[in-house]
Amino acid sequence: MKIEIISIGDEILKGRIINTNASSLCHLLQKNGYSVSRQTTLPDQEEQLRLGLEEALVRSDLVICTGGLGPTLDDITREVAAEVFDSDFYIDSSIAEELKKRYQDRYSAVKDQARIPCKAKALHNSIGSAPGLVFSEKGKTLILLPGVPKEVESLFLEQVIPLLHRRWPVGQIKRMVQMNLCIVYESLIDPLLRELSAQYPSVEFGIYPGHGILSVCFLSSDEDALSSVQKALEKHFGNYHFNASSGKIEEALMAWFVKHQKTLAFAESCTGGMLASHVTVLPGASTYFLGSFVVYSHAMKQQILGVSPETLRSNGAESEQVVREMLEGVFKKTSADYAIAVSGIAGPTGGTQDMPVGTIWAAIGERGKVPDVGKFVCRGSRETNILLATNYLLGALWRKVEKGIPGFPLLETR
Amino acid sequence: MKIEIISIGDEILKGRIINTNASSLCHLLQKNGYSVSRQTTLPDQEEQLRLGLEEALVRSDLVICTGGLGPTLDDITREVAAEVFDSDFYIDSSIAEELKKRYQDRYSAVKDQARIPCKAKALHNSIGSAPGLVFSEKGKTLILLPGVPKEVESLFLEQVIPLLHRRWPVGQIKRMVQMNLCIVYESLIDPLLRELSAQYPSVEFGIYPGHGILSVCFLSSDEDALSSVQKALEKHFGNYHFNASSGKIEEALMAWFVKHQKTLAFAESCTGGMLASHVTVLPGASTYFLGSFVVYSHAMKQQILGVSPETLRSNGAESEQVVREMLEGVFKKTSADYAIAVSGIAGPTGGTQDMPVGTIWAAIGERGKVPDVGKFVCRGSRETNILLATNYLLGALWRKVEKGIPGFPLLETR
Repeated sequence: MKIEIISIGDEILKGRIINTNASSLCHLLQKNGYSVSRQTTLPDQEEQLRLGLEEALVRSDLVICTGGLGPTLDDITREVAAEVFDSDFYIDSSIAEELKKRYQDRYSAVKDQARIPCKAKALHNSIGSAPGLVFSEKGKTLILLPGVPKEVESLFLEQVIPLLHRRWPVGQIKRMVQMNLCIVYESLIDPLLRELSAQYPSVEFGIYPGHGILSVCFLSSDEDALSSVQKALEKHFGNYHFNASSGKIEEALMAWFVKHQKTLAFAESCTGGMLASHVTVLPGASTYFLGSFVVYSHAMKQQILGVSPETLRSNGAESEQVVREMLEGVFKKTSADYAIAVSGIAGPTGGTQDMPVGTIWAAIGERGKVPDVGKFVCRGSRETNILLATNYLLGALWRKVEKGIPGFPLLETR
Repeated sequence: MKIEIISIGDEILKGRIINTNASSLCHLLQKNGYSVSRQTTLPDQEEQLRLGLEEALVRSDLVICTGGLGPTLDDITREVAAEVFDSDFYIDSSIAEELKKRYQDRYSAVKDQARIPCKAKALHNSIGSAPGLVFSEKGKTLILLPGVPKEVESLFLEQVIPLLHRRWPVGQIKRMVQMNLCIVYESLIDPLLRELSAQYPSVEFGIYPGHGILSVCFLSSDEDALSSVQKALEKHFGNYHFNASSGKIEEALMAWFVKHQKTLAFAESCTGGMLASHVTVLPGASTYFLGSFVVYSHAMKQQILGVSPETLRSNGAESEQVVREMLEGVFKKTSADYAIAVSGIAGPTGGTQDMPVGTIWAAIGERGKVPDVGKFVCRGSRETNILLATNYLLGALWRKVEKGIPGFPLLETR
């Protein structure tokens, strides 16, 4: 079966709001075993709306619309849909009663919402005033939902999903497997994915890069093919593969630290607090994360972490020796079991022949053990380089603790 | 003329990412005098992509696509577009040369990007590997852009907009004014905007909230109306209005600190490095920003910043007295002229009757002066609360230094 989503509203086409409804519907459908083949945004304009609905109903079995169901004059979705299905209207007395009860003296402003197309089934909206509407004719179904994200979500989960499961049971559901990889970059895994794609034509692949973290997704109704693909990826990239429902490496890292009751601290120069900020966005970070020294200036590197002025002078702040001393400083000033120290050239300026913009020096260590020290190069804008360095270092630390793999050499980043 | 935007990528239809490219292209087109009549999202699937492109080129004069131009196997936009325009390919030697220079030993992974359809004009991409492409035939124009938001924006502003202005000059262009406001929230400014909207019907309004920062945009071809609206907003909200081309409060803050040659440092508990990370993402932050003590644990608050164990015991970590002592600690441990100390309950748990989740205590001070100390409440998820607190505190500091307004009481946040 083919599903399309139509978002209705000038505010989206004028770039005034981001279309989060489309994204959350796509996500909820996918999660429930359905795929969306197209999403369209149309203006609050009768002719274009009718054309868009008609085209979609030719192409697809199910069309889900959001927006334009409200009580104001630019809300025309219900009228246009009734026209497309050639339907009259009736006043639904039970909806009218409920609106009266809920809106009282403001009832007159919303009473039009009890006017339901005869050919549609109304879906009860417990949050807002506009009921959802379901048209079904000649094997085609059109579902209209309001535009307010909370109403969309509640109507969709409580009423639309059960309706879909009754009408289109997901027997041969395609299952999606998602593998999160740290440190690996797109073009490194691409040759293997091409091979697997040729070998298992029933499997659909997707790669989603996110600043040094890759999500590889594969989708199929063929469980054997899925499991073969998974095994092949595991064989080649198992050492980079982390489990995290959020897709974030800091989730996997936190799981290890909490499980092993170890603590962590950072010393950050070029990442400027991004390392700490990533790990602390997750609830519960305080169970293992002690803190971070964001030592941006030379003076703070010296006074707070005890980096020697001579080291800074002779090596420069972005150097192996400085990150070694920063790491020592963290262990001296805190009780952390593990630490990362990082200093590099985020850009856009400050690069040299030997140390181009994006060169990041880092030390990753366990208290009392010889640390892993090395460098890697990020090739992006300043913000991208900071994010890349953050994810790479969290990934390298996770591999060190979880897999016993030294933090360096890392793959070159991109 | 009719314009459509097509977003290409399974990751959007599967609800894995929100389609911010479509929204920012709509916004930029609107700002430059063009309207979008439809936006469509299509999968990385040849047949559907070709159909979608062909339909759009029938309906509209200009079709702008994003996504699917990368070097991996699911990137098929270029091939499909070349098929639609019946075009062969050639290798563009100057693009190949530049890719070689930029990607060096990883050139083989990106070299396919120099393969350009003969009927297309390539647009130079200074950030990523995929050039933009412009097909033009029989009065129809198709522009292909990569999918990475930063690349989309840079190619669009630097090359696509000038091209549009040459090909479709906008006679009576509407000018857009954007005002950035810190600390103000939407429902506070909404009544004034409704009034102004009734008074100046030729002006279109938009409000774009961003975690404690509001952008108010107004668009019109009537310069007098624009200037009246601007004056009215300035009169009521001038004390919250900052200038920053990025729309970021940290840009305005940096401008003040650089101009006055003052320095800044932080002590962060609940913001977990987000304050530091915001200010250091801007190039040049090292000219005024010394660093931040991310003291997440009680022990670090005591050992690094000298917060007394007794204060922590009797007041709790999220308290007026603790942020006072944290601030004193920053001034003692660094040479900073100004500092912010913050400690609060980011959530989702940890709230009490008196201190609900989202309660943030902070101290904002100048060395040697009595600091401003107070609290405010954020009403969002954990991540939202951290971002709200960050922008609110940067805004409060900016108002203190630039406008001479004490940091507290802040408006209640939302």
